[in-house]
Amino acid sequence: MTDIPKFVKINEEGPREGFQIEKGTIPTARKIELIDALSDTGLQQIQTVSFVNPARVPGMADAAEVVEGFTPREGVRYTALWLNEKGLRRALANPKLFIRGSISLTASEQFLLKNQQRTVAENIAAQAGMIALFKENGVTIDRGSVMAAFGCNYQGEVPVGTVMDQMRAIMDLAAEHDLPIRTISLADTMGWAVPERILRVVGAVREAYPEVEIALHLHDTRGMGIANAYAGLEMGVATFDAAVGGLGGCPFAANAGAAGNVCTEDLVFMLHEMGIETGIDLERLIEVGRLAEDIVGHPLPGSVKVGGSLSAMRH
Amino acid sequence: MTDIPKFVKINEEGPREGFQIEKGTIPTARKIELIDALSDTGLQQIQTVSFVNPARVPGMADAAEVVEGFTPREGVRYTALWLNEKGLRRALANPKLFIRGSISLTASEQFLLKNQQRTVAENIAAQAGMIALFKENGVTIDRGSVMAAFGCNYQGEVPVGTVMDQMRAIMDLAAEHDLPIRTISLADTMGWAVPERILRVVGAVREAYPEVEIALHLHDTRGMGIANAYAGLEMGVATFDAAVGGLGGCPFAANAGAAGNVCTEDLVFMLHEMGIETGIDLERLIEVGRLAEDIVGHPLPGSVKVGGSLSAMRH
Repeated sequence: MTDIPKFVKINEEGPREGFQIEKGTIPTARKIELIDALSDTGLQQIQTVSFVNPARVPGMADAAEVVEGFTPREGVRYTALWLNEKGLRRALANPKLFIRGSISLTASEQFLLKNQQRTVAENIAAQAGMIALFKENGVTIDRGSVMAAFGCNYQGEVPVGTVMDQMRAIMDLAAEHDLPIRTISLADTMGWAVPERILRVVGAVREAYPEVEIALHLHDTRGMGIANAYAGLEMGVATFDAAVGGLGGCPFAANAGAAGNVCTEDLVFMLHEMGIETGIDLERLIEVGRLAEDIVGHPLPGSVKVGGSLSAMRH
Repeated sequence: MTDIPKFVKINEEGPREGFQIEKGTIPTARKIELIDALSDTGLQQIQTVSFVNPARVPGMADAAEVVEGFTPREGVRYTALWLNEKGLRRALANPKLFIRGSISLTASEQFLLKNQQRTVAENIAAQAGMIALFKENGVTIDRGSVMAAFGCNYQGEVPVGTVMDQMRAIMDLAAEHDLPIRTISLADTMGWAVPERILRVVGAVREAYPEVEIALHLHDTRGMGIANAYAGLEMGVATFDAAVGGLGGCPFAANAGAAGNVCTEDLVFMLHEMGIETGIDLERLIEVGRLAEDIVGHPLPGSVKVGGSLSAMRH
């Protein structure tokens, strides 16, 4: 229990996750409305859009307009996602965005072969090009991430040793390019983790790299998101990605219809009930969860927006 | 980690929970179909019906026919719920049912006043009557339960000390009537618990009564069910109530539309992924979760029946 943090930082990913995966068209104004509403909840970081190929991700065709349109609030970092140089340049074009580089590796070769037509070795080698690109554009690189760190739909089990191999590759690349890695994000990309697995993988990374802050990116594909977050807290993890209302979903065919990222307000509910601060106004966040449902036009998976928080019942 | 059990016993409550709370009429034959399907999953205990006033719970008007109709499978205990002598007599009328008595107390006075028009003291006093009734009918009493053990919609916080008061009252009654209490069920009746609260309450009960087996009855009202079950495992809890598909719901007005009991197949998924045995065939149980959805005619909250198990992806 002693490792449980006193303050947890949440990176809200709902706008990007939700806008990217929804079937129908969401008006740009409503996307902006959601980001502005999130800005008023006390969240410190919001991922707004991804700059990707609009032919492949039509829901992100208006990414630049969305970024143009929202009203930045002081103290909030607005981030974006990109997959290549073109996307990065589009992100850099807007000064509202907080741009940081990351060394991103994947712990499953089958996943890489299927999604990026690369082996693990080729993926590591390709990072040098991304690092050069970040440097050319004056982008600070202080993060690393390991995708599929807890299992993979294509490969099956991902041994802890394979995650540690990717960790070492990140740290070697960072040392070679003189980059101080402050944070490592471990992603349960396909929702394979259970709490015991979180303890094992986070424990191994923490033991080998005690100076690095660990962040968790958890998917709720099989309903384990909140339990996995709790296991992360037990291991001292104090940074989590989450999506308001449970916006988003699962892009993998094998899990069609399944939930996406762990739901922000459910996570914040648990944190506050455990006495862990987040700086977030839960009641406002629940309202934004309901707004998100209204925007996408169908029920979203989060539970607290249905069950209600407890603050009113305490008085 | 050392306290985590190697085998977990699940008391399936889906039929009783689901049939009781659903709005429309569910044909008796389909209720029987669900119980028979559950009997083939490896579950060792299934709560089938509640013998309650059909004027108040119309969905249970055919309870006797349901019990009459299902095909008992060797090794499975079929249980029922009752609230008074009349209900108990109806349950005793069918030899298929496994009948055990329980000393049931509630840790919230406001809940008792609201639901049973009784104070905590009156509720304790009333147990003598129930004990006499069980004894008259030759029913073994070896269980106790504490409802609202983690918080209450009407009262707010429930201090650990109040739970311990109820525990002592159960043990005093048991001693007075020479009843060996083997199991205590702690119920999060209104879905207030978070993992840290589970550790605290279960820890206190376990420390005071190390010889008693603790069972958890968890509600998923605010999405904490699986995380709370995990915290229970960490405290050595090896018996859980659950409902297939997440059947049932929340009978409290303040949580209209919220989820009910923790979902059986999501819980079994976590247990198996942690290497904990249950004797249950997860793939079959997932099929029964889908059958339950078909029977009630609307989506049920469980996640694994959407996200899928991992066994197929491992090959």
